[in-house]
Amino acid sequence: MTQPIAGIFPPLATPLLDRDTLDVAGLERLIEHVLAGGVHGLFLLGTTGEGPSLSQRLKAEVVERACRQVARRVPIMVGVTDPSFVDAIALAHTTGKAGAEHVVIAPPYYMPISQPELAAYIERFAAASPLPVLLYNLPSFTKVGFGLETIRRLLQTPRVVGLKDSGRDMTYQHSVLRITAARPDFSVLVGPEELLAEAVLLGAHGAMCGGANMAPKLYVDLYNAARAGDLARVRDLHDRVIRISDAIYSVGGSGSSYFRSLKCALACLGLCDDFIAEPYERFSPNERELVRQRLRDVGLLGG
Amino acid sequence: MTQPIAGIFPPLATPLLDRDTLDVAGLERLIEHVLAGGVHGLFLLGTTGEGPSLSQRLKAEVVERACRQVARRVPIMVGVTDPSFVDAIALAHTTGKAGAEHVVIAPPYYMPISQPELAAYIERFAAASPLPVLLYNLPSFTKVGFGLETIRRLLQTPRVVGLKDSGRDMTYQHSVLRITAARPDFSVLVGPEELLAEAVLLGAHGAMCGGANMAPKLYVDLYNAARAGDLARVRDLHDRVIRISDAIYSVGGSGSSYFRSLKCALACLGLCDDFIAEPYERFSPNERELVRQRLRDVGLLGG
Amino acid sequence: MTQPIAGIFPPLATPLLDRDTLDVAGLERLIEHVLAGGVHGLFLLGTTGEGPSLSQRLKAEVVERACRQVARRVPIMVGVTDPSFVDAIALAHTTGKAGAEHVVIAPPYYMPISQPELAAYIERFAAASPLPVLLYNLPSFTKVGFGLETIRRLLQTPRVVGLKDSGRDMTYQHSVLRITAARPDFSVLVGPEELLAEAVLLGAHGAMCGGANMAPKLYVDLYNAARAGDLARVRDLHDRVIRISDAIYSVGGSGSSYFRSLKCALACLGLCDDFIAEPYERFSPNERELVRQRLRDVGLLGG
Amino acid sequence: MTQPIAGIFPPLATPLLDRDTLDVAGLERLIEHVLAGGVHGLFLLGTTGEGPSLSQRLKAEVVERACRQVARRVPIMVGVTDPSFVDAIALAHTTGKAGAEHVVIAPPYYMPISQPELAAYIERFAAASPLPVLLYNLPSFTKVGFGLETIRRLLQTPRVVGLKDSGRDMTYQHSVLRITAARPDFSVLVGPEELLAEAVLLGAHGAMCGGANMAPKLYVDLYNAARAGDLARVRDLHDRVIRISDAIYSVGGSGSSYFRSLKCALACLGLCDDFIAEPYERFSPNERELVRQRLRDVGLLGG
Repeated sequence: MTQPIAGIFPPLATPLLDRDTLDVAGLERLIEHVLAGGVHGLFLLGTTGEGPSLSQRLKAEVVERACRQVARRVPIMVGVTDPSFVDAIALAHTTGKAGAEHVVIAPPYYMPISQPELAAYIERFAAASPLPVLLYNLPSFTKVGFGLETIRRLLQTPRVVGLKDSGRDMTYQHSVLRITAARPDFSVLVGPEELLAEAVLLGAHGAMCGGANMAPKLYVDLYNAARAGDLARVRDLHDRVIRISDAIYSVGGSGSSYFRSLKCALACLGLCDDFIAEPYERFSPNERELVRQRLRDVGLLGG
Repeated sequence: MTQPIAGIFPPLATPLLDRDTLDVAGLERLIEHVLAGGVHGLFLLGTTGEGPSLSQRLKAEVVERACRQVARRVPIMVGVTDPSFVDAIALAHTTGKAGAEHVVIAPPYYMPISQPELAAYIERFAAASPLPVLLYNLPSFTKVGFGLETIRRLLQTPRVVGLKDSGRDMTYQHSVLRITAARPDFSVLVGPEELLAEAVLLGAHGAMCGGANMAPKLYVDLYNAARAGDLARVRDLHDRVIRISDAIYSVGGSGSSYFRSLKCALACLGLCDDFIAEPYERFSPNERELVRQRLRDVGLLGG
Repeated sequence: MTQPIAGIFPPLATPLLDRDTLDVAGLERLIEHVLAGGVHGLFLLGTTGEGPSLSQRLKAEVVERACRQVARRVPIMVGVTDPSFVDAIALAHTTGKAGAEHVVIAPPYYMPISQPELAAYIERFAAASPLPVLLYNLPSFTKVGFGLETIRRLLQTPRVVGLKDSGRDMTYQHSVLRITAARPDFSVLVGPEELLAEAVLLGAHGAMCGGANMAPKLYVDLYNAARAGDLARVRDLHDRVIRISDAIYSVGGSGSSYFRSLKCALACLGLCDDFIAEPYERFSPNERELVRQRLRDVGLLGG
Repeated sequence: MTQPIAGIFPPLATPLLDRDTLDVAGLERLIEHVLAGGVHGLFLLGTTGEGPSLSQRLKAEVVERACRQVARRVPIMVGVTDPSFVDAIALAHTTGKAGAEHVVIAPPYYMPISQPELAAYIERFAAASPLPVLLYNLPSFTKVGFGLETIRRLLQTPRVVGLKDSGRDMTYQHSVLRITAARPDFSVLVGPEELLAEAVLLGAHGAMCGGANMAPKLYVDLYNAARAGDLARVRDLHDRVIRISDAIYSVGGSGSSYFRSLKCALACLGLCDDFIAEPYERFSPNERELVRQRLRDVGLLGG
């Protein structure tokens, strides 16, 4: 029996020069930055990575370049968020050829679907995918989430090996952990970094923290403290995570704040360009100055 | 000043043999069937046409083959429902080259967006699109709809020439008609066929009726009666539309009933295969028999 | 077999002097004003009447005073929107004793309920109510609406005699009309005044128009024109209704705009005080001036 | 500066003999049962206590009898969930006279309200209430929750002394804890028992666990373990809480399962009658047998 996937997998931001041009140097810098922080793997083309906003061509380029740059130092997962099954499978094949380890499949998010339709969709996807599959639960983006009965049914499919849970409902996650206990190779990874501490303290296997693009070591340290049961350290680092989240992701003041402020922060940190794909726009100079100030306030930027 | 688009534009179903293979003969039959019913144009790759569920390759094939088959006998619109701006524009270019007249652009439906972000998205799309643009309002699918203030702003963009309103809220549509009165070339087309009668009676320019795949003449007749103000005939035909909708689209009993039953009905009528793309599956033989019976009940199939 | 309830039933605003004091003179003036406009009945304590925001004591006072003032010149319906069954039935008894004809019962809107639970609730309510019952469908307020299967089941209960449909989805209303055709005493009344024209043109029996508090004759005229099939007049009056709605109810710019602007308009028209119960507050002088200006623009105020 | 409210406050179920008759003996037994388990206080007339489903008369009776029975052995909070401000304040006065310590005020949940309207509502309520006030955050019931900016504004009102957070979004709760750190008398109590462990580990002051009606000592023990930082014990007891939740509250399989199964379980445990107020109905004998079996499975009922 294989071990479940565990640890910190940053949902890598996708550095861009314009809407269909990768910031290649930025991607390399960002990858080296997070690897230097001790992360356990990478998650490409997730929501934080703007996967759904990128062209199919660019998505393939991201996967190929990132895999080459990482060169198997850590395992790589790739988010598949295409509403078309055929295009989704095509990306899974690109991913497999590039040398990544897993795909993370979102529910098709345009057509209305029932839970049995969702389960059947995933079963077919897992059968056709060249790589093992994690489920991407984020109902506020995809309208439908993975119900407990669907999880239970999909446990019968050995190639479904985990769940990325970005649903923000920890009562759901606790039930998932109980249900999946009979599949010790099944991994539950929490999405929002604000929930990393409690998730890992209570049994989750790891986290995909957007903030790890900025400060990878902080999240690795928190993960390790939670695994070790060092509660004092957990509280201290958790508090830092919440302060970063409140300070940075609130700039802009709308549903897109997280995406725009994170990309802006990466530019302020000298990691990559702050171009962001449609439907968003990069911050104005004033907002950028505010992000810079906040980064200083929380100790992520010197000066 | 050009005239607004008007009349019945069936949202053409996409006949399939499997998930990435067009039923070419079925497509030709279906096109000739609706043209024989007197429709004023075609709407390809809309929600009814399973646009978001098809591969980019197949979408291009549908557009090219349909345009060739129609050979400019009527104008063609193409639905663009790609969450990636770059891929959306690419489909618009394919559409323009194939000889279609308009694209119908949906809001990007994965990332959370505000109304100003939506307006800016459409402005950029309209600037980059080789064809004039209609707005695709269907918030239950895309999470966000076109607010009145967004409509008002987009009226300043001459290449935005209409709205397909599938939102089912006629109070919204009445306000849109009042707002857009100052742009006499701006067309408001209603989506759900159950609203065709009242929409056209009170000022809308036409409709995109899924049922027109089965019975195009019925919807053309209802449109003409509504335009002519023949209220007795409107009530009679409207009643028939509602009976068809209640009888056919309820088979299956879930959010996917409309899609699966319509495709099944087209197969029962000998127009095309009933294969339906993921995330759906074609009806079981029992459900298919029920659709066949209901088609007889409402007079769409001989006995 | 009795005739279905038909015509214009204004959802009467509740004139207040403060949060638990009725503006008695205002109530009398408002009642005489709408009766003078030719309305067919009154609807007390609906959403427009701020029923759910008023104390049980005040609700009883409104019912008793209004019934006394009307003195059976027209029939009266009373909205029952209490989440407690016991208190809801108590109001129904008060209503029956005061001489009203019907109660309009909303789903209990705090606890989550399924459709079968809703149907069972209404069956018990109808059995315990001293007056016949209409269903109050307004899912955006009560979270749950009356599904078609629930309507079908409740048709078996003779004391359920109608539906007030404020759901804004005319496809639903058309299906309800078809389902209820077998109960010719069953009345379907539309809520939003913006939908009065089409609802009555296509078979609904009447409407409960908030705007009829301001301009009762306009809505009575539109109702009569729609009943008579006078399409030119329908379009003309419908257009006026939409212009009033767009001009007045948008002042304030939030979810409470309708309530605050209507009450303010009634004050501007000299009918009653503009005090509005919590959770709302009356408009500021600037907003009130804007309402006054808009009333002049749409011809409801001289000047 | 006073200490924040802390510990386990069971949201007491309301034992009923019929829809408006209290099960007085059951109420006394239930109160003694939870007090014997070591709880720190009681929360009457919350959602679990079916507050919104009970008549005003019965709510007053519950408060008075419970206060008399408790006789100040522990502090009592009372949920106020009336959509009418006047009736809500009346219940607060009844509560104060009966000797309870706090009221927990829900947003008005019928009318649509903005965040500033919600803040103003609470400010007025706090000014008129004879008792200090906690905020009741449960947006899935009340449609609107307490946004962070509203919390921040309400911290200026000294009589607002806490938040009961039943929103299931722990990212929200972590931000609330950070915001309220400047008010050391302000208490954050978590609603869902499945979140008790992590909430208290990371800074919340206590919990209102429905399951504490059945097994008060379990939740008190878990609270104490979390306060003491005894992580091994926390994990063990948390696991038991999740198993109880999954086993018991899933019986019935709909949105009302929690309410009906909890009341049924209390009857199986010999604590009170299983009558449940409209809009719900008590379980069938088969479902009751299943609850009994599950209680045995999780060790709450001897065999």
